[in-house]
Amino acid sequence: MANSKYEYVKAFEQPDVLLPNTWIVVRIDGRGFHKLTDRYNFTKPNDRRALDLMNAAAVEVMKDLPDLCIAYGVSDEYSFVFHPSCQLFERRNGKLVTTIVSTFTAHYVYLWNSYFPDSPLQSPHLPSFDGRAVVYPSTQNLRDYMSWRQVDCHINNLYNTTFWMMVLKGGMSNTDAEQELKGTVSADKNEILFKRFGINYNNEEEIYKKGSVVYRQYQLEDVKSKTTVQEEPALQEGQVSKTQQEKLRKLRRKAQVVVDHVDIIKDEFWERRPWILSGKPGKLPAE
Amino acid sequence: MANSKYEYVKAFEQPDVLLPNTWIVVRIDGRGFHKLTDRYNFTKPNDRRALDLMNAAAVEVMKDLPDLCIAYGVSDEYSFVFHPSCQLFERRNGKLVTTIVSTFTAHYVYLWNSYFPDSPLQSPHLPSFDGRAVVYPSTQNLRDYMSWRQVDCHINNLYNTTFWMMVLKGGMSNTDAEQELKGTVSADKNEILFKRFGINYNNEEEIYKKGSVVYRQYQLEDVKSKTTVQEEPALQEGQVSKTQQEKLRKLRRKAQVVVDHVDIIKDEFWERRPWILSGKPGKLPAE
Amino acid sequence: MANSKYEYVKAFEQPDVLLPNTWIVVRIDGRGFHKLTDRYNFTKPNDRRALDLMNAAAVEVMKDLPDLCIAYGVSDEYSFVFHPSCQLFERRNGKLVTTIVSTFTAHYVYLWNSYFPDSPLQSPHLPSFDGRAVVYPSTQNLRDYMSWRQVDCHINNLYNTTFWMMVLKGGMSNTDAEQELKGTVSADKNEILFKRFGINYNNEEEIYKKGSVVYRQYQLEDVKSKTTVQEEPALQEGQVSKTQQEKLRKLRRKAQVVVDHVDIIKDEFWERRPWILSGKPGKLPAE
Amino acid sequence: MANSKYEYVKAFEQPDVLLPNTWIVVRIDGRGFHKLTDRYNFTKPNDRRALDLMNAAAVEVMKDLPDLCIAYGVSDEYSFVFHPSCQLFERRNGKLVTTIVSTFTAHYVYLWNSYFPDSPLQSPHLPSFDGRAVVYPSTQNLRDYMSWRQVDCHINNLYNTTFWMMVLKGGMSNTDAEQELKGTVSADKNEILFKRFGINYNNEEEIYKKGSVVYRQYQLEDVKSKTTVQEEPALQEGQVSKTQQEKLRKLRRKAQVVVDHVDIIKDEFWERRPWILSGKPGKLPAE
Repeated sequence: MANSKYEYVKAFEQPDVLLPNTWIVVRIDGRGFHKLTDRYNFTKPNDRRALDLMNAAAVEVMKDLPDLCIAYGVSDEYSFVFHPSCQLFERRNGKLVTTIVSTFTAHYVYLWNSYFPDSPLQSPHLPSFDGRAVVYPSTQNLRDYMSWRQVDCHINNLYNTTFWMMVLKGGMSNTDAEQELKGTVSADKNEILFKRFGINYNNEEEIYKKGSVVYRQYQLEDVKSKTTVQEEPALQEGQVSKTQQEKLRKLRRKAQVVVDHVDIIKDEFWERRPWILSGKPGKLPAE
Repeated sequence: MANSKYEYVKAFEQPDVLLPNTWIVVRIDGRGFHKLTDRYNFTKPNDRRALDLMNAAAVEVMKDLPDLCIAYGVSDEYSFVFHPSCQLFERRNGKLVTTIVSTFTAHYVYLWNSYFPDSPLQSPHLPSFDGRAVVYPSTQNLRDYMSWRQVDCHINNLYNTTFWMMVLKGGMSNTDAEQELKGTVSADKNEILFKRFGINYNNEEEIYKKGSVVYRQYQLEDVKSKTTVQEEPALQEGQVSKTQQEKLRKLRRKAQVVVDHVDIIKDEFWERRPWILSGKPGKLPAE
Repeated sequence: MANSKYEYVKAFEQPDVLLPNTWIVVRIDGRGFHKLTDRYNFTKPNDRRALDLMNAAAVEVMKDLPDLCIAYGVSDEYSFVFHPSCQLFERRNGKLVTTIVSTFTAHYVYLWNSYFPDSPLQSPHLPSFDGRAVVYPSTQNLRDYMSWRQVDCHINNLYNTTFWMMVLKGGMSNTDAEQELKGTVSADKNEILFKRFGINYNNEEEIYKKGSVVYRQYQLEDVKSKTTVQEEPALQEGQVSKTQQEKLRKLRRKAQVVVDHVDIIKDEFWERRPWILSGKPGKLPAE
Repeated sequence: MANSKYEYVKAFEQPDVLLPNTWIVVRIDGRGFHKLTDRYNFTKPNDRRALDLMNAAAVEVMKDLPDLCIAYGVSDEYSFVFHPSCQLFERRNGKLVTTIVSTFTAHYVYLWNSYFPDSPLQSPHLPSFDGRAVVYPSTQNLRDYMSWRQVDCHINNLYNTTFWMMVLKGGMSNTDAEQELKGTVSADKNEILFKRFGINYNNEEEIYKKGSVVYRQYQLEDVKSKTTVQEEPALQEGQVSKTQQEKLRKLRRKAQVVVDHVDIIKDEFWERRPWILSGKPGKLPAE
């Protein structure tokens, strides 16, 4: 019994290879997390367990896919970045995105009990994530994308911190707090926090203010000697053989994946960790 | 602190809306399940627990997304079908695929312990799935896609059943069994099964021979009266308002989602369940 | 001297094959024809020479590409239709569109002098066209597309006829005529034409009211016997070999390409010319 | 008479905006020019009139679209390049490609008689062109694309020059010449040309050996002072307003479009004409 009669349907699949020599960002977002945070009683404005769980799942994704060079997470979203020289899955959009979404989801659900021992998952109300890939032609574009997410983290966190203080400590209704915050700028919110609640926003935890940066750790470079961060991707399209790719993957697996809460808008972060933008593994830290 | 300086990076997202008035098939596949089945000692050639787990996860996906009209699963793959009139997520490819992949993964991991109580998951070796969407312009194309998968199920299962009999019961090496089966047709394999192992393939369980069909159950139609299955999608693009869509979703949620192991190549299955191809909910079965 | 060092740049070309088993409509539009009609003194509201030139160029495109089954033109736009079974240029979007745009432009420029003997082209003010392809999954969608263009032709022509009568015969300024027509319906315009200028719109030339339909002529079918126009494309994807395609092309080249100004919204046009939607050449008219 | 009933068909058009901040190359190719060169008796191996006609049409395209920064032509193909900051037609693929293809075709047909006064065009055997767009993320990729085409020009011209000498002067049959050239390298062909026909390939005309480069002429920069060619596009996505775009277009229209036959593989060409890669108009040459 041959299958040839029906096999023509395979011809309807359309290719979705991402443009070569571009940065690939896969961003995933929690689906309906507003409802979910209510159901499982997430702490407001930030639930440390939830963020740690996000980070733990992201670390597993980074370990599973050594082609990833950096990831950045805030709230219920995470952005994973592939280098322009990446050839994983022949750069097929769907394959890259679904693999990350599924691997992340698997670890998130699996690890849930470790982070929420008192709030077991209740089917069918399980966490899930959607995702999309965006490509960026230049390193500047990629840096701007990362800055965009971190600025967003700051803006949202300042708002949320102020809002929930007004509600939880200030006894205001959600609507009243929302109303008062409408049109305020950062300085206004800082003042509300300080004057009404004695809170200096600068002293808030870095994980809330900066989000979480996940990457492989090698020996940091001395910024002064600054061997100029290369703007152009160092590895050229088509010049990395399958064997070389496999070798690079092995090297990267040896590096530790770390979670940091630091500024990624200024140059320093990138200059001291040149392997992230160059795509070339650095020196492993001395024991 | 405005975010406008970096927001230009949003312009790099490219639209991925699927062509209107086409059937959307989202097929997901287990990633590296060959290794996984070894690690968790899946029974060969078919592990009933694993198939039941796949089906349970698929049922949850069907319940979560009432826009789905049918799903078909075999081995570690599952195909989910949206009607041509579907407007879910504005038919965005990435959103549809990642939502299904993530929801399926979440339930699969969550339910694992119920189906494999003696083989708990061991991180980082968690199951994950990739996925892709394909659109089909005509109902005949969709029917042919479904037939393609079911014929494939049959071909693979006959091969695997024979192969594993030769290895497990016949004491042959994998290589020898593979060698002997090379070039054989269905009749040859049936004969090997019958003559050497006394097995009549027709008596094998339907779930292995036919795969699993998942759909909403309404009152079956009498085939004789056959009100001719409409070839053209019954609901026209643009004629279904958001309110109507929500109403349809509610109606569909009332129907029971069932798992069947039946022929979906012949017309009968589709003629008796006209709601699947018409996109119009049927009559709920009398209590 | 090998070229391999630079050949990697070929990998950046992205595939653009159109979905199989769908109707392909390539619509071209005059670029900046408003200015062009002024420069070359086109008659208002309709310039018969200009329409005849459009039609002549369209006929040449139809002859050059026997895979085309019908074309429809109005004003400075033309829509060319390929059958769902069409495999020309492997259905590559760019190739199909640019071939039609370029062939049309070549004939339009070449034939200009025959239709405008007193207004020779003045470089660099040459006519040019842009174009795009759209695919339609069902025959009903294709029919609706054609109806859309013909309704548009009617709406625009009634407006333009009335407007230019008011300006050219009625001595009104463009602005005044525009102002008065704002918000009017068809009946109002018909009345203006009749009461002020003694014109019965129904007696206007068909080419202005209906646009131009271009197709291959075979023996008309008797509508009464009506062998039901097939809604589904008659030729299945993948079932037409290269040899058969070439044979079909030869058959089609034998048919005369005709220009008609008739209703294509109602069924009759399509029922009497079943070869257009079936993709199967009809019977050549008896000599 | 409203058109709303059919207007839903507009929703089937799919967006085709090219990735921002990338170089856009539109390459057009003569359709069936092999036959065409026979019909109109083009001189072998190169027909100077034909190349001059190609160049004249390309110059008109450059003048018509000031957003173009450079073009390169060889044989019956031409590549037109838009800068990464280009916003013309919102970077819609189809619109950009068809506009170039159509404008080029119009001028090519219009100018034919000036270049081939003794071989008037014979309908329906008119020249036409197809085209496609490819985007390149980095300036290095764009430079490599240009080098690829110029190396190709050299390889083909050396081959054709040798081949046609052997046939036209050497009295060999096409097959014999082809046979002898199979597997030869450049040195071999140079030797055949020199030993048998007394031709020093280096003395061949530059237009044949190098192809044609078309660009806007400003004051050349002194290479020594070399203000380092910027690798990164100088104009950032989203930072060029519509007004600024229009201003830039006007400035560019003032520059003369020139045709050159020079090396574009080495750096010198680009360093002396920094406006091509920077996207910023240079200084107009002193009168």
